[in-house]
Amino acid sequence: MKTFEFDLATAILPTAEGFSATVDPGWTIGSRPNGGYLLALATRAALTVTGQPHPLAVSGHFLASPSIGPAELEVRALRSGRSVSSARVTLLQQGQPRLETLVSAGRLEPRAEPEWRADSGPPMLPPLDECIPGQAELPGGGMRVAILERLDLRLDPATAGWVWGRPSGRLEVRGWVRFRDDRPPDPLGLLQAVDVLPPATFELGIMSWAPTVELTVYLRDLPAAGWLRCAARGRLVQGGWFDEEVEVWDQRDRLVAQSRQLAGVRR
Amino acid sequence: MKTFEFDLATAILPTAEGFSATVDPGWTIGSRPNGGYLLALATRAALTVTGQPHPLAVSGHFLASPSIGPAELEVRALRSGRSVSSARVTLLQQGQPRLETLVSAGRLEPRAEPEWRADSGPPMLPPLDECIPGQAELPGGGMRVAILERLDLRLDPATAGWVWGRPSGRLEVRGWVRFRDDRPPDPLGLLQAVDVLPPATFELGIMSWAPTVELTVYLRDLPAAGWLRCAARGRLVQGGWFDEEVEVWDQRDRLVAQSRQLAGVRR
Repeated sequence: MKTFEFDLATAILPTAEGFSATVDPGWTIGSRPNGGYLLALATRAALTVTGQPHPLAVSGHFLASPSIGPAELEVRALRSGRSVSSARVTLLQQGQPRLETLVSAGRLEPRAEPEWRADSGPPMLPPLDECIPGQAELPGGGMRVAILERLDLRLDPATAGWVWGRPSGRLEVRGWVRFRDDRPPDPLGLLQAVDVLPPATFELGIMSWAPTVELTVYLRDLPAAGWLRCAARGRLVQGGWFDEEVEVWDQRDRLVAQSRQLAGVRR
Repeated sequence: MKTFEFDLATAILPTAEGFSATVDPGWTIGSRPNGGYLLALATRAALTVTGQPHPLAVSGHFLASPSIGPAELEVRALRSGRSVSSARVTLLQQGQPRLETLVSAGRLEPRAEPEWRADSGPPMLPPLDECIPGQAELPGGGMRVAILERLDLRLDPATAGWVWGRPSGRLEVRGWVRFRDDRPPDPLGLLQAVDVLPPATFELGIMSWAPTVELTVYLRDLPAAGWLRCAARGRLVQGGWFDEEVEVWDQRDRLVAQSRQLAGVRR
């Protein structure tokens, strides 16, 4: 059985207090590990203690950006139920909490059908070959986006005006996403997928890092193999903060994950 | 200075391990305390340890419905920063965790102006006297919604078809909300306001309790005095779960809070 890069990078080892892990250099933007990657790492630890197969709702508060290298994961079971079990995971480095995560887990049924859904369907994206491939070297240079060597991202040109210095002026980004090594998407992979698009604030001409304060993800369905479509949109930029909601849709036109984050605007 | 019911019901007392509080019978639906009320109670405890004036992002995982009566609040400071500080609060009864909450707190500036906002503005609601007043006695009888004796809720008739047995068929509810005793809205009050509307699933004809698994709230602005407008909407009902997003707008047409919850469909 093939071992995929994402699973190696989110591997955990049991210790006396919980688990140890290594924050991998391959899933970074500049020197900072990606938030979705960290959430997947923490959720993997939570799943082992809940005994449930899938995360249903994951909330992370980002306390301080972790460094590349060893980390400890303290896990506490909070509730053990038939349909839902919950756990808390603290990711620490040098004894300092860097990310605090709550996970409620259960089982996503492979053949569940939507009982009701809103009229607005999956995002309309141009075909892959008309989209803009994400590059590890950002135009303008300087920062290396290592995560884009592992994730294949194709941006909808209508929401990637910043690439040519002509941002759309809307808090909106869309794109296709998949793992480059053909790892099939699953709920842990979806935690990564919700946080792969560049910050929607790029399309407002704000070309800087957008530190996430809080990121919540709901897992709604088991994703089919193949490309995922991600659509991010925000409502308000005010007081140095903005919100960003991401929907992830799979090849069957199923809504498989929803996320929302509150992030900072740094100018 | 007048003391308001909501502040009495969310009062906390320092103890050796954190705080003690009383889950108040006045903020219930049937025998169950309201989720927004519980989130406000936990957030009050978090604010005292962070030393920050306002919650910015609050995430709660509901583990088991608390009973009316005494509760303990265990609080742990997670990060202390200049602009953001974070804390975790565990609400326990009989030593069992009932609600786990993460709070990132900071300062909402009273005169902040939107730097950018989406075109869709506040929800259009009919005037108050054309709306349906929320009643503590649900039509059909049986359950007492005590919280509606403390909160004045006026439902948009277009989203309250269930009252006459003619649900709209859309996962959508809107209404006006205020505290009956004239308590002015503030960020803690907004945590309550996001969870006052009846479950949007009522409008799908599912007339039962919708247990919340996770509820996250972002506080975006300090609300002006007066009525709040709340608009709830969901995307998908599947596998026994549905999502519900609530926006809260104040009298100045400012988006003051956003929430999202994942809840169960019980038939």
